[in-house]
Amino acid sequence: MNKKTYIFELPMGVRDYECDVEGIVNNANYLHYMEHTRHQFLLTEGVSFIDLHHRGIDCVVARITVNYKTPLRSDDQFLSCLNIKKEGVKYVFLQDIYRMPDRQLCMRATVETVCIVNGKLSDCQELNAAFGKYF
Amino acid sequence: MNKKTYIFELPMGVRDYECDVEGIVNNANYLHYMEHTRHQFLLTEGVSFIDLHHRGIDCVVARITVNYKTPLRSDDQFLSCLNIKKEGVKYVFLQDIYRMPDRQLCMRATVETVCIVNGKLSDCQELNAAFGKYF
Amino acid sequence: MNKKTYIFELPMGVRDYECDVEGIVNNANYLHYMEHTRHQFLLTEGVSFIDLHHRGIDCVVARITVNYKTPLRSDDQFLSCLNIKKEGVKYVFLQDIYRMPDRQLCMRATVETVCIVNGKLSDCQELNAAFGKYF
Amino acid sequence: MNKKTYIFELPMGVRDYECDVEGIVNNANYLHYMEHTRHQFLLTEGVSFIDLHHRGIDCVVARITVNYKTPLRSDDQFLSCLNIKKEGVKYVFLQDIYRMPDRQLCMRATVETVCIVNGKLSDCQELNAAFGKYF
Repeated sequence: MNKKTYIFELPMGVRDYECDVEGIVNNANYLHYMEHTRHQFLLTEGVSFIDLHHRGIDCVVARITVNYKTPLRSDDQFLSCLNIKKEGVKYVFLQDIYRMPDRQLCMRATVETVCIVNGKLSDCQELNAAFGKYF
Repeated sequence: MNKKTYIFELPMGVRDYECDVEGIVNNANYLHYMEHTRHQFLLTEGVSFIDLHHRGIDCVVARITVNYKTPLRSDDQFLSCLNIKKEGVKYVFLQDIYRMPDRQLCMRATVETVCIVNGKLSDCQELNAAFGKYF
Repeated sequence: MNKKTYIFELPMGVRDYECDVEGIVNNANYLHYMEHTRHQFLLTEGVSFIDLHHRGIDCVVARITVNYKTPLRSDDQFLSCLNIKKEGVKYVFLQDIYRMPDRQLCMRATVETVCIVNGKLSDCQELNAAFGKYF
Repeated sequence: MNKKTYIFELPMGVRDYECDVEGIVNNANYLHYMEHTRHQFLLTEGVSFIDLHHRGIDCVVARITVNYKTPLRSDDQFLSCLNIKKEGVKYVFLQDIYRMPDRQLCMRATVETVCIVNGKLSDCQELNAAFGKYF
């Protein structure tokens, strides 16, 4: 197996309230999983999403593409993985979710985010400094 | 203005709990808005998502692309609009959300759904019959 | 039938993503229904929850008691009803939810809220003025 | 300090999407935290909520009283704690949430649950066997 590598991996578990009547995690909750993963990644880089917000820097999602592969279900454990690249002013996150322990790919997504600084689309020096080593 | 037309439009309003600390609707909630819109559209066509589920037919999202244009905020009213086309076994929904009354485009998405009948990816005669007039 | 009366009634419908694997609305979502009802009630009185927040007045829930009577399910329509009284600095909302059209009582709750003005528990003259006629 | 003891404690962290525009965890999300805690507690006792559901046993919340003491915020870590007692056919969970590491009490709740077996309110021998040692 050619195992893909990531710069950040977060172990998580499905919570029952995230599942809908079909017994699978509702499609919207994967966006919650991914956001939480990005924010935890930021924290490991010494950057707090909330702290940025309080200083007038809002990171917002501009575009998202999600491929749902295998549904997660109640009691499933999973690994939420992330890579990052820069395209112009966009920070593009490549996010994959694997069910564990069998490492079945459940979801593959591309999340394009931008920074709004004091209400204006801007390049963010702080994030560039934090993430520069990954570009 | 060249106003785009839709086969289904649902007036909705932002609920405050859908907004996050940035004061804007969280990106995941747009998927909730769109799902609710699809299910309400189904109902107008005489098809209940839950009823399908109880008869062994599960409609699931396979792929989604969302372009976030202008954020919705607390107290905003909006119109959630939908068109549909068929591509192979996929039902592809083209979904746009406009803030009202100024009709500012807030989100444009493509949602590809498939039917799982008794656990197997299948073409769904019932949905084909219901939607055929739109293809 | 001795029909109870309310100062505010909001017609709503269950959204499928609010239901869990048991096919019923998840217990937490009733708190969302009630919050939305309170905020819509505020709007009819000319008070915006978000606008209050931006002026340093935060209304927060201090205590809540919910009696779940009959579960709401997919496709159910319901009426979310509200009365209000004042107890000291608390605004106490009596909130009932009825399934429609059979008016089956689904939930009965008491929600005690307080105002935090510039970070301090305070009586809120603005809310007193808006709601005074109901006390 | 007279530290209260619990039969189950689950370390959790606030996820940013759980916070609303006031910057605090929305009141409804505490019910999600508590449900997740109960279900994780069940799992440690060898009982799966979903597995019960598939065998016709649904545990539902009948009544809940929540006292909100200190709001949780973004990036907060917390400990979700639980005790259980039996009252008639009710399983009553006493649930407390503490912010960590300062162990500030954030929420204190009583959650009364009942079992619906094949559609009928019933005493559940399986849960009695699993929890009997705690009553």
